[in-house]
Amino acid sequence: MFEQRIYNFSAGPSMLPVPVLQKCADEMLNYQGSGMSVMEMSHRSKVYDEIIVQAEALFREVMQIPDNYKVLFLQGGASTQFAMVPMNLLRTGKADYVVTGQFSKKAYQEAKKIGSDIHLAGSTESTNFDHVPTQEELDLRPDADYVHICLNNTIFGTKWHYIPDTGNVPLVADMSSCILSEPFDVSKFGLIYAGAQKNIAPAGLTVVIIREDLAGFTLPGTPTMLDYAVQIKNSSMYNTPPCYPIYVCKLVLEWIKELGGLEAMKERNQKKAAILYNVLDESKLFRAVAAPVDRSMMNVTFRTGNEELDAKFVKESVAAGFSNLKGHRSVGGMRASIYNAMPLEGVEKLAVFMKDFEARNL
Amino acid sequence: MFEQRIYNFSAGPSMLPVPVLQKCADEMLNYQGSGMSVMEMSHRSKVYDEIIVQAEALFREVMQIPDNYKVLFLQGGASTQFAMVPMNLLRTGKADYVVTGQFSKKAYQEAKKIGSDIHLAGSTESTNFDHVPTQEELDLRPDADYVHICLNNTIFGTKWHYIPDTGNVPLVADMSSCILSEPFDVSKFGLIYAGAQKNIAPAGLTVVIIREDLAGFTLPGTPTMLDYAVQIKNSSMYNTPPCYPIYVCKLVLEWIKELGGLEAMKERNQKKAAILYNVLDESKLFRAVAAPVDRSMMNVTFRTGNEELDAKFVKESVAAGFSNLKGHRSVGGMRASIYNAMPLEGVEKLAVFMKDFEARNL
Repeated sequence: MFEQRIYNFSAGPSMLPVPVLQKCADEMLNYQGSGMSVMEMSHRSKVYDEIIVQAEALFREVMQIPDNYKVLFLQGGASTQFAMVPMNLLRTGKADYVVTGQFSKKAYQEAKKIGSDIHLAGSTESTNFDHVPTQEELDLRPDADYVHICLNNTIFGTKWHYIPDTGNVPLVADMSSCILSEPFDVSKFGLIYAGAQKNIAPAGLTVVIIREDLAGFTLPGTPTMLDYAVQIKNSSMYNTPPCYPIYVCKLVLEWIKELGGLEAMKERNQKKAAILYNVLDESKLFRAVAAPVDRSMMNVTFRTGNEELDAKFVKESVAAGFSNLKGHRSVGGMRASIYNAMPLEGVEKLAVFMKDFEARNL
Repeated sequence: MFEQRIYNFSAGPSMLPVPVLQKCADEMLNYQGSGMSVMEMSHRSKVYDEIIVQAEALFREVMQIPDNYKVLFLQGGASTQFAMVPMNLLRTGKADYVVTGQFSKKAYQEAKKIGSDIHLAGSTESTNFDHVPTQEELDLRPDADYVHICLNNTIFGTKWHYIPDTGNVPLVADMSSCILSEPFDVSKFGLIYAGAQKNIAPAGLTVVIIREDLAGFTLPGTPTMLDYAVQIKNSSMYNTPPCYPIYVCKLVLEWIKELGGLEAMKERNQKKAAILYNVLDESKLFRAVAAPVDRSMMNVTFRTGNEELDAKFVKESVAAGFSNLKGHRSVGGMRASIYNAMPLEGVEKLAVFMKDFEARNL
């Protein structure tokens, strides 16, 4: 039982900024004099319309999204996008997938269920996804309908430190675990999607940013709800959208803007990640899992090399008020997910705890 | 600007019980000593697992769901079920649809995009859906894969007062706007689905209750996320579920149970509906839209017959602290949606307002 809030290093759903949660609590029974909770509002009402319109405007402003891109607020998570992308973009049936972790592999497998010519354009599975391929290692086809990548690999703690050059072929990116963590040049992508539960909002919202010329086609039998053109035409309101997560998304974007936008987020996140990677690089007990050049700024994976010691670390960390530091079973060891809402203080305290654990166990 | 909460007659999303909202506010920053908000919890954590397991157990208890049915917590709303149902249940390609309103019509149209032999087994469109067909009026085929109905028609204010006899053919029902409003014999249905935003929880959650033998088949190209068998196998956690609405669902079910379960809900709802229908039946100004025998207990549709007077009523009702009484554009007039969370007091006050309006405008 914790009287106070703890440092939650969960890979997702994960921490939300305290001022956002405070506002959610304060406005729960009566949103700004509307006499109702945001959870109770008709999605067609004027008061709710202001919320969703502002959420989109803030997304555009914070991410500097060009005018020829649409922002959609959908449901179903990235896993639904794994099917929705090929169902809408596979005009000729050819697509290239780069597999750099569990989620990009799932996306690749889902596309193979749907398309006839899905090509593995790169994979780092042989080294258990401890790095990301270089541009030279990619086997891209100039006539593919799109190239799919996952920009940050939550489980393995790696990220693409460059945006691959795909020529005229649209680049589709799963940004679930790095969106809003730093500035990205949206114009280099054809389509970006992200589950909300890491850097945007609570689970149940999926944000899609799509270059408008890519919408308008679907394979036969595609559900209406999985048609980007339908969602665009109806401004994400073909049916009732996930209203409350969209409201929280708006609050999170206001918080990001107030802190200085994505440049400030990047600086903050670099600082947090550097603290942990420095501890790891100087440690005689712990070592980082990901290749140094491909290290994620959001998910820091590490281990001692001794499973019992790893388990001891995780157990003691819980008692010390740090939660969810256990690594994913496919990597083992530990993982500290340090998304936007994780305060610097939480990372600093974890670093102290790690050094102390090392001193006691070396 | 309202200092106090108002009576919100929205068709959905709609009112939630005040004790539920109060609990949401109280637990927002620290759920039961976990040190975190429910919105921040890993869906794989022990603390969250207790929430989703309890939500399902309560659903089973409150609705008396037989053991050979699975309860799923999904995303995408009823509109996604319009596609998911045929993609999973159309083993031979034959299905019968009864169209009694806008949503059952959408379900029918979506099925026609997917199946080759989708049959219109009944329709009340010729009288603008002011009633529901009798058993004798249904043209059901004994070899259909399933029969689809919408049990309560939100827009038109009608409901099925009987469960149609479909023999050995599984009955699939959209219960979005009447689930949890009264007891239903689940064993008479093959599959029940409901968007949460009326009687269950905030928008972003879809509850599916499926007889387990109906899962296991999918049409080629069906997205993994739209495969009931996958969702069953993973206990609604193939990917991150809509965690927060599931938590609110649990709180709502606790509230229902505390008030006496679905029998008590039915009594309460009958009483509320009777108050409004009595006003309408005695009125010289207003008249009810739906056929008396098919009147909904959740959505009361009415009009004066004079569009200007209808508009005046709506305008004055807003000023008096009643919101969302405007009828859907396809019916016109007014609609009072009085789901479980609408207190008796709200309906009584609306009745007084209606009588007063009549006295001033007759």
